[in-house]
Amino acid sequence: MTGFAEALKNAGDLASAQIAASLDGTQGPIREAMLYATTGGKGLRAFLVMESARLHGIEPQNAAPSAAAIEALHAYSLVHDDLPCMDDDDLRRGQPTVHRKWDDATAVLAGDALQTLAFELVTQTGCPDAARLRLITTLAQASGVRGMVGGQALDIAAETAAAPLTLAEISVLQAGKTGALIEWAATAGPHMAQADTCALGQYARDLGLAFQITDDILDVEGDAATVGKAVGKDAHAGKATFVSLLGLEGAKARAQTLVTSACDVLSAYGTQADTLREAAEFVVARKS
Amino acid sequence: MTGFAEALKNAGDLASAQIAASLDGTQGPIREAMLYATTGGKGLRAFLVMESARLHGIEPQNAAPSAAAIEALHAYSLVHDDLPCMDDDDLRRGQPTVHRKWDDATAVLAGDALQTLAFELVTQTGCPDAARLRLITTLAQASGVRGMVGGQALDIAAETAAAPLTLAEISVLQAGKTGALIEWAATAGPHMAQADTCALGQYARDLGLAFQITDDILDVEGDAATVGKAVGKDAHAGKATFVSLLGLEGAKARAQTLVTSACDVLSAYGTQADTLREAAEFVVARKS
Repeated sequence: MTGFAEALKNAGDLASAQIAASLDGTQGPIREAMLYATTGGKGLRAFLVMESARLHGIEPQNAAPSAAAIEALHAYSLVHDDLPCMDDDDLRRGQPTVHRKWDDATAVLAGDALQTLAFELVTQTGCPDAARLRLITTLAQASGVRGMVGGQALDIAAETAAAPLTLAEISVLQAGKTGALIEWAATAGPHMAQADTCALGQYARDLGLAFQITDDILDVEGDAATVGKAVGKDAHAGKATFVSLLGLEGAKARAQTLVTSACDVLSAYGTQADTLREAAEFVVARKS
Repeated sequence: MTGFAEALKNAGDLASAQIAASLDGTQGPIREAMLYATTGGKGLRAFLVMESARLHGIEPQNAAPSAAAIEALHAYSLVHDDLPCMDDDDLRRGQPTVHRKWDDATAVLAGDALQTLAFELVTQTGCPDAARLRLITTLAQASGVRGMVGGQALDIAAETAAAPLTLAEISVLQAGKTGALIEWAATAGPHMAQADTCALGQYARDLGLAFQITDDILDVEGDAATVGKAVGKDAHAGKATFVSLLGLEGAKARAQTLVTSACDVLSAYGTQADTLREAAEFVVARKS
């Protein structure tokens, strides 16, 4: 494995183990659904937490609760986003979605409890009280109506809008829906160390946008078995995407430009940040 | 108005105003649904925060963010609990439920964003960092799979269980579903002041149980117009309740015993706690 592939796997495993440990002593279908929903993901957000923490001299065991928190929060958003009244998806990470494997009520409650767990976990991060409060506040801002949920609301509104979204509108939507949590994850390390978040914030904004453009490309070029979820949905629904607005080649070129920019902005960290640079390359090269 | 009625109204108004202020600059149906869902409630939890804070010398403006937080969290739980896949209720506080006034997707997202907002608000409480972290941690514990969501899960499981729940099982269910947030609210003041939470914790456990028993009595004796939501649902569904297990008179007697106990445990606070004692009397005397 490359340094990146290994770091990604380790971070994902660490987050899953921490989530499982935090559910020790509970039982029932909500617990099972919570574990199911936090298993089998790429672990990209956990990886960004662990790497940004490493760059700022934070010990892995101190950063781990934040890595688990962001994976729990991301999982909650997927479980609710997949519901019949939302995107109505049957497949996620190559497996039945939570409401298909259990039922809608279990999916609503498991998602709710995963959001709560995220805030419980982040309070366990090993850093000064002021830094922990900053992590909690920024996590709430990134995931609320001004962040992720705001982006999801724009996405739903777009489905019934008179005209397809413009490039500017889609960029705002994406910055909320996908970008905000990725930025939180990549700036968690400097937050823990009470250091400047500027470079990693810019890295994350480029990375997040490249990630979403690649999602749109996979929706056109990918096959469901490899991607692990339904494809072709956006084109079929006539939704504006980065591909419909930039063309397939234009979208690929834009994603590559963003990767270059993301790598460049990490110059202050030198070769220490090479794993984050590999992550940026991975985000646009991935097939799922 | 009595001292209690005025304090209750003030606390509810304060929480609503704080929630509205925190949504300044946002727009769209999610925002509207969030405001709608946090309007017209009794404000009991906000009142408990403000009173327990007053008893511990915390200024109202310092406690207000926690009062708003618990009302936002309570509202999220109601919005999701009313969904068709959960309790499927059309009426709440005498008005159409969020999914009836908008749609299911808006209700899911508005509930999600209200939970996030609760954690954002609680971080703004005016108290030492360590006390704020304690408020956040205990709020997460009270609302997660070991608290409120755990109680909701038991409630849903009970609907398909082979036998009606026992008194012990219903008490556990209620302690999670209703009790945990009430206890958090009543102990928020001593948490802010980094003082002992024992007396107010016991008060809240008695109060919470009396509250739920009264809910079960209202489901039998109340009419929908006064109660503000559908009544007779539990009996119709054959669900075990405190009334089905204790009888109507037994349930009333038990609620009254709990009120007496709740009032007694506040002795250390003297007459300063009379408003909280009035609250306990109100909880069992209420008609909605």
